[in-house]
Amino acid sequence: MSDVADVLFTHARLATMADGGYGIVDDGAVAVRDGLISWVGPRSEAPAAAREHDCGGLWLTPGLVDCHTHIVHAGNRSDEWEARLNGASYEDIARQGGGIMSTVRATRAASEDELLRQSAPRIAALLAEGVTTLEIKSGYGLDLASEARMLRVARRVASTMPVNVATTFLGAHALPPEFAGRAGDYIVEVCERMLPALAREGLVDAVDVFCERIGFTHAQTAQVFEAARKYRLPVKLHAEQLSDQDGAALVAEYGGLSADHLEHLSPRGAEAMARAGTVAVLLPGAYYFLRETVMPPLSLLRELGVPLAVATDCNPGTSPMTSLLLAMNMACTMWRMTPLEALRGCTVNAARALGRGDVGVIEAGRRADFALWDIARPADLAYAIGANPCRLVVNGGVPRAPRVSLPA
Amino acid sequence: MSDVADVLFTHARLATMADGGYGIVDDGAVAVRDGLISWVGPRSEAPAAAREHDCGGLWLTPGLVDCHTHIVHAGNRSDEWEARLNGASYEDIARQGGGIMSTVRATRAASEDELLRQSAPRIAALLAEGVTTLEIKSGYGLDLASEARMLRVARRVASTMPVNVATTFLGAHALPPEFAGRAGDYIVEVCERMLPALAREGLVDAVDVFCERIGFTHAQTAQVFEAARKYRLPVKLHAEQLSDQDGAALVAEYGGLSADHLEHLSPRGAEAMARAGTVAVLLPGAYYFLRETVMPPLSLLRELGVPLAVATDCNPGTSPMTSLLLAMNMACTMWRMTPLEALRGCTVNAARALGRGDVGVIEAGRRADFALWDIARPADLAYAIGANPCRLVVNGGVPRAPRVSLPA
Ligand SMILES: [Zn+2]
Ligand SMILES: [Zn+2]
Repeated sequence: MSDVADVLFTHARLATMADGGYGIVDDGAVAVRDGLISWVGPRSEAPAAAREHDCGGLWLTPGLVDCHTHIVHAGNRSDEWEARLNGASYEDIARQGGGIMSTVRATRAASEDELLRQSAPRIAALLAEGVTTLEIKSGYGLDLASEARMLRVARRVASTMPVNVATTFLGAHALPPEFAGRAGDYIVEVCERMLPALAREGLVDAVDVFCERIGFTHAQTAQVFEAARKYRLPVKLHAEQLSDQDGAALVAEYGGLSADHLEHLSPRGAEAMARAGTVAVLLPGAYYFLRETVMPPLSLLRELGVPLAVATDCNPGTSPMTSLLLAMNMACTMWRMTPLEALRGCTVNAARALGRGDVGVIEAGRRADFALWDIARPADLAYAIGANPCRLVVNGGVPRAPRVSLPA
Repeated sequence: MSDVADVLFTHARLATMADGGYGIVDDGAVAVRDGLISWVGPRSEAPAAAREHDCGGLWLTPGLVDCHTHIVHAGNRSDEWEARLNGASYEDIARQGGGIMSTVRATRAASEDELLRQSAPRIAALLAEGVTTLEIKSGYGLDLASEARMLRVARRVASTMPVNVATTFLGAHALPPEFAGRAGDYIVEVCERMLPALAREGLVDAVDVFCERIGFTHAQTAQVFEAARKYRLPVKLHAEQLSDQDGAALVAEYGGLSADHLEHLSPRGAEAMARAGTVAVLLPGAYYFLRETVMPPLSLLRELGVPLAVATDCNPGTSPMTSLLLAMNMACTMWRMTPLEALRGCTVNAARALGRGDVGVIEAGRRADFALWDIARPADLAYAIGANPCRLVVNGGVPRAPRVSLPA
């Protein structure tokens, strides 16, 4: 067995994200062996390789990581969105069976094939923008069979499309109608029946809860986290989106991977996250779509050194968004994140929010997942609104066009 | 010569925009002859045609019209945007030669070929979303030769890419450094030297001014409009974006096609627009990117029956946006326009803002410019954020893929 790399990507301007900044190497090269990065550095020092791929001076970044999505679901909610804009009240919408339960009904009614068929174009839109790793949550099934179907579809995405998928079980997303008035019983169902069965089937990479006045309580969240601990599954949390439920401190206490949303995060919660190394996953799409006005406490998070990630939160009710580049722009435009923070938030810190040390940085030992961009400088990725400068994507060393074909 | 149409587009769900609403025909057909629509209606009543094009149940709308762009320019301003987000002040940026003058310098330095090469990918992004008619303003040349070069490039866009182009001379966009402290002299240059020469060369479809405290005064605007009148050119105006300059009333007085931006529009201005039939062109991208908080007075405009259009305002300083669908979403999300208003704003009313009665509606006699969409209902066009459901575009009866190749 020789030391020669399989392929050397040359004539690229690298933004490796390896050094706390962009990690720029102006005339760089990346060597790949067995699907992993084996060497990174200036082209003049590059090792031998069986083949060369000339990147023609394009910028090369880690493949993007969308670390918070509900992208597998059936139907959309443009009908009720239009009705609301035409003057219908939330009560009108609810009376007509709208809101999250309409997505639950559609998702329960859909077969695995149908769920994949409806979700694939949304996923392809992300992949066209250089996304190579994607989190997918359950949470529109809300019964064992339907949650299992969602998570199996998430696994099928990974096997039929060029993307790494991290699955998250979000059974505690909303109270299903069968359990109306019995949230406690539903949490028992989640902990004692659904999670064990799904974990046994290997469908769960992490466990999440919607901890909110309109979701589940602090105490119910702790119950779910205890169950996750039994199965040695990492946890994350929809925390402090609409009100402060002290959820960030709770998920930090469990060594959680991430606390997500965080508009109403308290200093206490932020400090607990900093101590635990829990990533703050910020979701500007939902903030924008819901016209929120309270921003996540960015200065505090920066001061405490909490890692910041940015994701689409792709979902039909509060963030029907399938562009991670646009999420980066929104984070910078609406919240004054810097373009560097936004790009780190969709690469190295997003990988960390998924507990994946194998992606998100261009460095030896990580997967050879990267994206090539026709841009003047890395800030262009966050600056342009509605452009897609992605010219090539590499998954595990294998180049592909940004636009992928949909699974049959 | 027979009465038979050249081609019949069948099995489409039509949103014709012909009747003040969506103008929906559920199982519709559109007949095309000599590049024009010759018939529209239910498929069951369709006339004979030499060929048929089966639309497979996709939604068919008029090709979209982006009626306000500065899309032809050189360079971008992501560097100063990033510097600002990293804490640089406007003064720092100005000292380093930033702001609009950096775009003027880059545009003046670029050849026609170079300008086209840099602008084409931005235009292609719009075209991929079903845009078939596009306004392009000058205004980064600010001298005769450079303004002419910008407008010639706009004409070359029309001849090398599948899109109708309406050109607008915006010489009075900013004061060029050669005229520092002599705005009056520059307006004379615009009116007596630049406009006559450009009009003679057939480069000007309309005339525009940036009427603002940081632009040109009401009186200077009137001077430019007088000059336009001499050449029988229609006028439009950047009006009331940052402050009320009574510009809307002025452009209405000249029977202007449109008043654009309008966040600070007065009731007096709105009433003048209503009387004159001047279209309100709303630009949510700039509002978003500049984090404005004063919305255009939509209720008033609705009450008075002022036609509403929506455009990207694509420009490197205040709206680096190349997605008209996203502009529609922003108009609905940030300002509570309805999806119907947004779509009419990018079709029939946008056409009117350009004085083009030949596009923007699916009806007999207009150009056969339309877009085919894989959506559940027309509201999806404004609802989805960062998706592109366009599957086919038809320019003058000729189908093309949404993604076009760039001019050589
Ligand atoms: Zn979520
Ligand atoms: Zn403008």
